[in-house]
Amino acid sequence: MSHSGKKTTEADRSLDPADWGAFRQTAHALLDDCIDYMETLPDRRAWTPVPDAVKARLTGPAPGPGRPLDGVVADFKEMILPHATGNGHPRFFGWVHGTGNPAGMLAELCAATMNSNCGGRDHGAVYVERQVIEWARGIFGFPEGASGILTGGTSSATLLALSAARVGKVGAGLRKAGMEQGPQLVAYASAEAHSANTKALEIMGVGANWLRPVPVDANHALVPERLRAMVQEDLAAGRQPFCAIATVGTVNTAGGDDVNAVADICAEFDLWLHVDGAFGAWARLADDPWRAYTNGIERADSLAFDFHKWMYVQYDVGCVLFRDEAVHRAAFAARPDYLAATTRGVSGGEPWYCDYGLDLSRGFRALKVWFTINHYGTDELGRKVSDNCRQAARLADLVTGDPDLELMTPAGLNICCFRYVGQGGLDDAALDALNAAIVLQVQEEGFAVPSSTRIGGRYAIRVAITNHRTRLSDMDLFRDRVVQVGRELEGRS
Amino acid sequence: MSHSGKKTTEADRSLDPADWGAFRQTAHALLDDCIDYMETLPDRRAWTPVPDAVKARLTGPAPGPGRPLDGVVADFKEMILPHATGNGHPRFFGWVHGTGNPAGMLAELCAATMNSNCGGRDHGAVYVERQVIEWARGIFGFPEGASGILTGGTSSATLLALSAARVGKVGAGLRKAGMEQGPQLVAYASAEAHSANTKALEIMGVGANWLRPVPVDANHALVPERLRAMVQEDLAAGRQPFCAIATVGTVNTAGGDDVNAVADICAEFDLWLHVDGAFGAWARLADDPWRAYTNGIERADSLAFDFHKWMYVQYDVGCVLFRDEAVHRAAFAARPDYLAATTRGVSGGEPWYCDYGLDLSRGFRALKVWFTINHYGTDELGRKVSDNCRQAARLADLVTGDPDLELMTPAGLNICCFRYVGQGGLDDAALDALNAAIVLQVQEEGFAVPSSTRIGGRYAIRVAITNHRTRLSDMDLFRDRVVQVGRELEGRS
Repeated sequence: MSHSGKKTTEADRSLDPADWGAFRQTAHALLDDCIDYMETLPDRRAWTPVPDAVKARLTGPAPGPGRPLDGVVADFKEMILPHATGNGHPRFFGWVHGTGNPAGMLAELCAATMNSNCGGRDHGAVYVERQVIEWARGIFGFPEGASGILTGGTSSATLLALSAARVGKVGAGLRKAGMEQGPQLVAYASAEAHSANTKALEIMGVGANWLRPVPVDANHALVPERLRAMVQEDLAAGRQPFCAIATVGTVNTAGGDDVNAVADICAEFDLWLHVDGAFGAWARLADDPWRAYTNGIERADSLAFDFHKWMYVQYDVGCVLFRDEAVHRAAFAARPDYLAATTRGVSGGEPWYCDYGLDLSRGFRALKVWFTINHYGTDELGRKVSDNCRQAARLADLVTGDPDLELMTPAGLNICCFRYVGQGGLDDAALDALNAAIVLQVQEEGFAVPSSTRIGGRYAIRVAITNHRTRLSDMDLFRDRVVQVGRELEGRS
Repeated sequence: MSHSGKKTTEADRSLDPADWGAFRQTAHALLDDCIDYMETLPDRRAWTPVPDAVKARLTGPAPGPGRPLDGVVADFKEMILPHATGNGHPRFFGWVHGTGNPAGMLAELCAATMNSNCGGRDHGAVYVERQVIEWARGIFGFPEGASGILTGGTSSATLLALSAARVGKVGAGLRKAGMEQGPQLVAYASAEAHSANTKALEIMGVGANWLRPVPVDANHALVPERLRAMVQEDLAAGRQPFCAIATVGTVNTAGGDDVNAVADICAEFDLWLHVDGAFGAWARLADDPWRAYTNGIERADSLAFDFHKWMYVQYDVGCVLFRDEAVHRAAFAARPDYLAATTRGVSGGEPWYCDYGLDLSRGFRALKVWFTINHYGTDELGRKVSDNCRQAARLADLVTGDPDLELMTPAGLNICCFRYVGQGGLDDAALDALNAAIVLQVQEEGFAVPSSTRIGGRYAIRVAITNHRTRLSDMDLFRDRVVQVGRELEGRS
C-alpha cells in the first residue's frame, strides 16, 4: 500500500516523505555506503583526526528551514563517517571499546523502524528484552526468578545495582526518608575498581569517601582479609557497611577479585554482593583459564555488565541482573495514575521495565543483542572472547621476549600493559614521555589505537582487546611498529 | 575493496559475514521491509496484541550454535515487527510517546555503522553532539557558554540536573562526604509534577518526602505564594531548601507553571531553578498561545527535555542543559589514569562527555537529532508542534460540544482528558468502569491508542498528541468512535 498518491492538506502534512520512492533510493544508496564502510574497515586507517574545517562547519544555530535528505546524507558521509574513533578496526585496542557487528547494524535499523518505547506496556519489544535478560540469567548462573534490565552501560547499571543494594540492606523506607536520618553507609571495593562505582555512590549521596578502597595483592586482586578487617572497623565505629563490590576484569590489568572469597565475607556480615563485570563477566563464555575468572559470579546479589564491549554489540547497551526480583522492584517501582496498568489492552504486559530502573522512556536496546546472540550463538561469541584473551597473552609473550620492551602487569584476560624501554639508560620520566609519543604517533599515522594508563605511577601503553576483527598477527605487527617508532624517536634508527 | 576473497584461519575469523554479497542482499531486502512498514503505518492497526504463541517462542536459554542471518530476520518480521505499541500510527495518543521519523531511521543505521562511543575522545560523533547541544542552547535562550549532554531521556536528565543542583548549592565536597553530615536538603515541585523528579531524589538519597508538593491552582499550575511559604517554613525548621522545579507541560493537562514566578522565588532564596520540560519545552517552537508556556524557561539553572517526544526523533534521546558549565563539570568530572586526555591523538577532543554525566560509554544519540533537525528544520518541526496543539484543542471543542462527553481538564498544550458520560444517570464508579472499557475496546480493535489517567480521582481518557502523522480529522474520527463504543457498551445502540 502506498500513500504517495494521497492528497494531504498543509495542516495534515506529516514528516513522512512526499515521495517514498525517492526516499527509498536515498536509503538503499546509504545502506550500500554503510556496508562498504564496514566491509573495508580493516583496510582503512584506524583513526583519522577530524579536520578543523569540519569542526567549523559543525557549529552555528539550528536551521529554521530544512533541506533535502540527500544533502544531509552527503554531509554525513563527508564530515562524520570518515572520522570515527576507529573502534571497528582490527588494530583498535584503546580503552575497552567494542567493535559492533553487522547483524547488530541491521537490528538497529529495525529498532529505529519500530521506534518502541520499552518503559512498559504490551508489545513485542518487551518480550525480546525479557528473553535477553533470561539468556543472561542462564549464562551467569543466576537463580530462576532473578530479574534484570538493560541499561545504557555498566555505569548506569552500577547506579541501579548500588541503589537497590541500599534499599535491600537499609529498607525501602529510605526511598521516602532519604539518608539524612540513618547511620553512615559504607561500601567496599578494591583499589583497582572502576570509577563508575565511585560516581554511583556520589550521585546516591553516600559519598566517595565511603567507598573504602580495599588493598590488593600482587595480582591486583582484593585481599579478602583486609576487606574483613575494614568491615569490622566500620562496624565498631557505628557505621553501617552495606555492600561489597567484586570486580571481574579490572581496568588496568584485566585481573579479577576472588568472587567466592568476597561472597563469603558478604554472607558473614550480611552485605550485598555486587559484581562489576563490565567486560570481564563475558569470560564466562571463554575457555579456561579465562572462564575461571568468573567463578563465584553466580553468588552475586547484583551483576553489572555490558553487551557493547565483549559481546561486540553496537553502542550502547549494558545490563544489570538482580538475584531477588522483590528487592529490585522495591528499589524502583512507582506508578502514578497516568501509568496505571491493565490486564488487557496496550497497558497490559506487566511487569513494566519502568518499575525496574530509572527511565520511563527506554529505547529498544534488546533487539541488537537478540540479533547478535541469535545469529552468532554463544559458542562463536565465546570463541571470540577466548581469541581476544589469546591475543593479549601473545602480546605479553612478544613483549617479554623483546629486549626493547617491558611488560608492566601480569597477564590477565584481554589487557596487556607494557612500555618501550629501548636499550636502557632512560629514567622513568623520559620513558613516560617517550611512550606517550609512541602512542600518539601510532594513533596519528592511523596504524593502531592503543590507549594508555599508569601502572605504579609509570606510563604504560595499554592494549585492551574486545575486538572480533583483531587477528593474532596484529599483535606481531603492533609490537614491530611500537619498537620501530620507539627507536626512531630515540634516534636509534 | 572486498575482503570476500581473503583466506582467514579459524582463529582469525571475525564476526563479519563470510559472503558480503549475501549480507548485502539480506540487508537491502530488510530495508525495503522497514520502509514498507513505515509507509503503510497509517493503514495498519494502531496496535496488535502479541500472540501467546509468539510469547512462548521468545523464551528459553541462549542458543549455543548460531543460525543464518536470514532466519533471524525472518523471525523478527514474523514475531516482533507486527507487534509494536503503535506509536507510529496517526491515532496513537497514548502517554506521551513520540512517533519517530524516516530521517531518524536512516540516522540510526548510520550510527550503528560507526558504532561511536561518545563518552569522550576526538572523533566526529562528539562534534555532532556539541552542535546539537548548541542548537538546543540557542532555541531555549540559554546564555553562551551554557553546557549540556544528551541522555536516554528526561528521567536520566533529571537525575543529572538535580545532582548538579545539589553540588551547586551545597558544594562539590558533597561528592566525597555524602549527605550524612549536612542539614536535610529540600526540593519543591508542584503537586502535578512528574514522578521522574521523585525517583531522582530517591536515588540521590534525598528522599521522596523531601520533595515538597506545592499546591496548584485551578489551571494545575504551582501557586508561587505557597512555594514561598513552604521554603520559609523549611528554613525556619533548620532545613536547607536547594532546588525548585517548574514544569512546562504537566502530564495530566499539559499545563505549566509560571516559570518566571518560580524563578523570582529561586532568586530570592538562592535556590536552583530546574525546569522539567520533557515534552512541553518544545512549545518554544510553536505559535502563540502555546509558545508562551515556555516564557521564563531561559532563566533556568537546568532544563531537562526529550527529543524523542515532540521532536519526533527515534527513541531514546533526551537532554539536559546547564546554565553554568563549571557547576555541571563540578558535579560529574572524574578522570582516572586510564582515561587521561592528551592534546593530540585519539585522546584529544576535550571536553569529554563522561565528565558531564554518569555514563562512560555513550552511544551516538546525537546523529538522529542532527538528521531530524537538519532535514526538517525547526520551522517545520515547530509547525508540527503547533498542529498537535491545534488537534488537542479541536478534540476539546468536539468534547465540549458533545452531550455524551465531558471535558475533564482545561485545555493545555497537546493533551485532552475527557470521559464518556452518555445521557447521564451513571455514577462515577460506573463511569470509571465504562470509560476503562471504552479505552480497552478502541485499543484492542486497533482503531486508536489513547491512554488514561485520573483527574480529581475520576477515570479519564487521556489523549496526548506528540505525533506528526496525526491529522485534524483523526480527532473527529476518534470522538465518533468513543461515543459509538460508549453507547454500545451502555446498550444504547
